[in-house]
Amino acid sequence: MRVGVLGAKGKVGATIVDGVESAEDLVFTAGVDADDSLHAFVDTDTAVVVDFTHPSVVMDNLKFLVDHGIHAVVGTTGFTDERIAQVREWLEAAPGVAVLIAPNFAIGAVLSMQFARQAARFFESVEIIELHHPQKADAPSGTAARTARLIAEARKGLPPNPDATSTGIEGARGADVDGVPVHSVRLAGLVAHQEVLFGTRGETLTIRHDSLDRTSFVPGVLLAVRHVAKRPGLTVGIEPLLDL
Amino acid sequence: MRVGVLGAKGKVGATIVDGVESAEDLVFTAGVDADDSLHAFVDTDTAVVVDFTHPSVVMDNLKFLVDHGIHAVVGTTGFTDERIAQVREWLEAAPGVAVLIAPNFAIGAVLSMQFARQAARFFESVEIIELHHPQKADAPSGTAARTARLIAEARKGLPPNPDATSTGIEGARGADVDGVPVHSVRLAGLVAHQEVLFGTRGETLTIRHDSLDRTSFVPGVLLAVRHVAKRPGLTVGIEPLLDL
Amino acid sequence: MRVGVLGAKGKVGATIVDGVESAEDLVFTAGVDADDSLHAFVDTDTAVVVDFTHPSVVMDNLKFLVDHGIHAVVGTTGFTDERIAQVREWLEAAPGVAVLIAPNFAIGAVLSMQFARQAARFFESVEIIELHHPQKADAPSGTAARTARLIAEARKGLPPNPDATSTGIEGARGADVDGVPVHSVRLAGLVAHQEVLFGTRGETLTIRHDSLDRTSFVPGVLLAVRHVAKRPGLTVGIEPLLDL
Amino acid sequence: MRVGVLGAKGKVGATIVDGVESAEDLVFTAGVDADDSLHAFVDTDTAVVVDFTHPSVVMDNLKFLVDHGIHAVVGTTGFTDERIAQVREWLEAAPGVAVLIAPNFAIGAVLSMQFARQAARFFESVEIIELHHPQKADAPSGTAARTARLIAEARKGLPPNPDATSTGIEGARGADVDGVPVHSVRLAGLVAHQEVLFGTRGETLTIRHDSLDRTSFVPGVLLAVRHVAKRPGLTVGIEPLLDL
Repeated sequence: MRVGVLGAKGKVGATIVDGVESAEDLVFTAGVDADDSLHAFVDTDTAVVVDFTHPSVVMDNLKFLVDHGIHAVVGTTGFTDERIAQVREWLEAAPGVAVLIAPNFAIGAVLSMQFARQAARFFESVEIIELHHPQKADAPSGTAARTARLIAEARKGLPPNPDATSTGIEGARGADVDGVPVHSVRLAGLVAHQEVLFGTRGETLTIRHDSLDRTSFVPGVLLAVRHVAKRPGLTVGIEPLLDL
Repeated sequence: MRVGVLGAKGKVGATIVDGVESAEDLVFTAGVDADDSLHAFVDTDTAVVVDFTHPSVVMDNLKFLVDHGIHAVVGTTGFTDERIAQVREWLEAAPGVAVLIAPNFAIGAVLSMQFARQAARFFESVEIIELHHPQKADAPSGTAARTARLIAEARKGLPPNPDATSTGIEGARGADVDGVPVHSVRLAGLVAHQEVLFGTRGETLTIRHDSLDRTSFVPGVLLAVRHVAKRPGLTVGIEPLLDL
Repeated sequence: MRVGVLGAKGKVGATIVDGVESAEDLVFTAGVDADDSLHAFVDTDTAVVVDFTHPSVVMDNLKFLVDHGIHAVVGTTGFTDERIAQVREWLEAAPGVAVLIAPNFAIGAVLSMQFARQAARFFESVEIIELHHPQKADAPSGTAARTARLIAEARKGLPPNPDATSTGIEGARGADVDGVPVHSVRLAGLVAHQEVLFGTRGETLTIRHDSLDRTSFVPGVLLAVRHVAKRPGLTVGIEPLLDL
Repeated sequence: MRVGVLGAKGKVGATIVDGVESAEDLVFTAGVDADDSLHAFVDTDTAVVVDFTHPSVVMDNLKFLVDHGIHAVVGTTGFTDERIAQVREWLEAAPGVAVLIAPNFAIGAVLSMQFARQAARFFESVEIIELHHPQKADAPSGTAARTARLIAEARKGLPPNPDATSTGIEGARGADVDGVPVHSVRLAGLVAHQEVLFGTRGETLTIRHDSLDRTSFVPGVLLAVRHVAKRPGLTVGIEPLLDL
C-alpha cells in the first residue's frame, strides 16, 4: 500500500514517516509540508495520505484528497459538527473514497475507554485516577472526563456509587464528573497514565493505560492506514476498526 | 422472582441464601441440603434454583428441576461433554425451561478474560502475572492458563512477543503457555489476583482483577438468577449475559 | 515466653489468642475478659500481657500489671498526653518493667510511613492515594493524613510540588494536607490500601500498603510481645522495634 | 559551586551539563572530552568534576583530579577492587580531596533497594517482579538480582517463603536468586520498572520503582555534586548521602 504524509516535517508527521518506512507492507511515497504542492501525492500514485497538520489547512487538504480519489487518515484537531457534515457531503459525491478522522490514535487509550464502558453496569462502584506530568494545565484530563461520561451513560438507571463519607477535607473525594469521582495526580517523572477502578462485593477490576512516550499514536495510525480503504465514506474514531 | 438454593447449608450455599435474601427484587423460598426433599421447591412455587452442590448429585438435581419446569443456575463443577449433552437432551424435551452452568461466576474475572481476548491482537507483547496465597497447589492458576490460551488463539497468525533475552537464570521469563509468558507469585497476605499486561510502541494496557474475598461469586450468581428465564435451553458461562 | 491476653473474648482479643497459641516460641497462659480477675495472670506466672480492651478500663489494667511486674503490649486507644505521663510515672517506680503502647500494629503500614518519611526530601513531587471500602466515614483516612504530615515535615524548606494546573473541576487535585495532595477512593470490594507516590526527573517511586483482612495487626503484636521485655520503661509505637 | 564535566559530548555527559546549567546553586565551568586537556578544569577554578567516560581513561582522569585537589563524582563503570584500592591510596596522599564512585545514581532505584533490605525480615514472603523493554539481553536484570541478594542476606536465619506449589509448568515460579523468586517481564512500550512484594498475614507491602526515561540519573548526580566536598576520601554509592 502506497502511503503519503501531510505535515511531514512536523514532529508528529516525521514520526509517522518513520513508522510507514519501517512497516514491511507499506511504501512511503511523498511527504508534503507547508509550502509543497499536494500534487506530489497524485504524481506518486499515493493510495492513502495521513494528515497531522493544522485546523486552518486541513479542510483544504481533505477537499483535494477526496477530489483526487485518495483515502485520508486524519489526526488534525478542530473537527466541529459543521466540518464533519461538510466532509460527509464531499464523500457522497466521491463513492469509494474513504476518510477516517480520529481524536485519539493510541490503541491502548481507546480500548481502555471501550472496556470501561462495557464493564460499567456490572459493578457497584467506579472511580477514575489519572496521573500526568506536572506541566499539564487541566485537571481532570480530557480523556478522564470523556471516560467518566461514557461510564455515566452506561450506568443510567443504576444506583449511585455507595459512599458513607461524612467528615473530611474538601477535595479528598475527587472531582464529580456525572457522578463518577475523578482524581488527578500531577507528579514529576510521569508522562500520561489512567486507571479506571470498578468494585463490587469481594472483587475489583482495574483497567490501566500507560502512555510512556509521545509516539504511542503510531500503531493506531498504521492500523487506520491499513483498514481505511475497506470503509468508504466517513469513519470517526478508530473504535470501528477494533471489532470489539 | 422466587429463588431456592440447593446445597443451602454449605459455605457457598449459605452465602447465596444471604445474597438472595438481601436483594430487593428476589424472594428466598427454600433451602435444600443433603437429606431434604427436592419437592420443597415445587411446594414453594420456586421459579429458579441455584445449585452449588457436588458432582455426585448435581445431575439428579438437574433432572428433577427440568422435569418440574424450574430454571437452574449451576456452579457445581465436573461438567464433562457427556454431562453437557445429557442436560441439553433433557432441555429439548422441556421447552421454556432454562439452565445456566458456569465454571466462574466472578464478573470481574470473566470480564477481564473477555477484555484480554479482545485486546490481544492489537499489541506486540503480552504477559500474565497471577498472584495468590502460598497455600495454592498449582502454578500457574487455572484462570491464568485459560486466559493465556484465549489470548494465544486470538493472536494466531501474528508474530510472537519480541524478546531479546540471551542470558539469564532459568525460570526468570516465566512459564510458556501457548507462547504467552505466565508468572506466578505466591505471597502470604494475598488472596487471588491477576494482571494481563499488553504493550506496544509507547504505551501499555493492563487489565487487573483482584478477588479479595471468597464471596465474589455472589453478584454473578444473582445476575444469572435474574436473566436465566429469558434464555430457555442451555447456557454455558455468564459471558452471554454480559452483552459484550 | 508466657503470654496472657486482656479482652480475650473480643474479636481482636480472640485473634491474638489464636496467634499466640500458634506461635512455637510462645505459651498462652490466660485470657481475661470483663468479669474475670486480673490475678489469673499472676497465678499463671505470665510474663507479658496483651491488652486490647477499652479506654475506660485500660489504665486500671496497666496499673495492676506494672505493680505486679508484668510487661504489657497495648493496642487499646485513647492515650492522651496525661495518660502517657501517668504510665511513665508508674514505670519509674517499677524498674525493669516494660510497657509498649502503639496506635497501629500493622508492620506494613508502619514501614510504609517510615519509608515515605525517609524518601520525602529526595523527590520534587509527592502525592498520596488511599483506597477503602465505601462504609468508611472519613476522607482522607487517618493514616493518610498522618503520612502526609510526616512527609510535609521532612520536606520543610524544600520547594512545593510543581503543579501547572490552571483550569479544572473542583476536587480533582485532591485534599491539601500540609501541601501534600491526598486522594480518597471509596470502592465496593476494597478493604484498606494506600499508595505514596514520589516523582522526580525520569523516575517515580511508589510505596503501596494493602491491608486485606482485619487480622493484619497480629504479626506486629507478636513482634512486640517478643521484644518488649528488652525495653524497660515506656515505648510508644512499634517503630523502635524495627531497627530502621 | 563550580562544576565541570568529563565526557561532556557523550549523551550522558551532555545531559549532565544541561542539569548543572539549570541548577541555580551550581556554575558550569568546563566540558572536557576525548581530545581536550584536563587543565581546563584547573584554569576555570573548578571545584567538582563529574566523570561519565570510559573504563580505559577514568583512572588517568581521577589521578589528575586528585593531584590537582579537585573533587570527583564518577559514574563510569569498571571499578574492580584493585582500582578502588588504588583510588583510596591516591586519596590518602591528598587529605581533603573527595571522590564518590557510584554504580547507580537513580535515587528512586537506590532508595527502593534500601527499603527492600529494611523490610525484608518483617514479612513471611518476598518476591520480585522486574519489567523491561524487550531489547534487554539479561533476565533477571542486574538490579533485580542485586536486590534479591540484599534481601536474602537480611533474611538469613529466617524460614523460607511458604510455598505449597506441587504441580505446574516450569518457570511459573520465576528464577530463584538466593531463595527469592524473581520474575522478568519483557514488554514493548516499557522502559525499566521493578516491584518488590512483601507479604504477611493480612497485609502486603509493595515497593515499586519506575524509570521512565534515561535521564533519571541527573538528580542523583547533582545530589552527589552538592555533598561530595563534605566527605573527604572515598565514598562508594550514593546511599551514604541519603541519611537513611
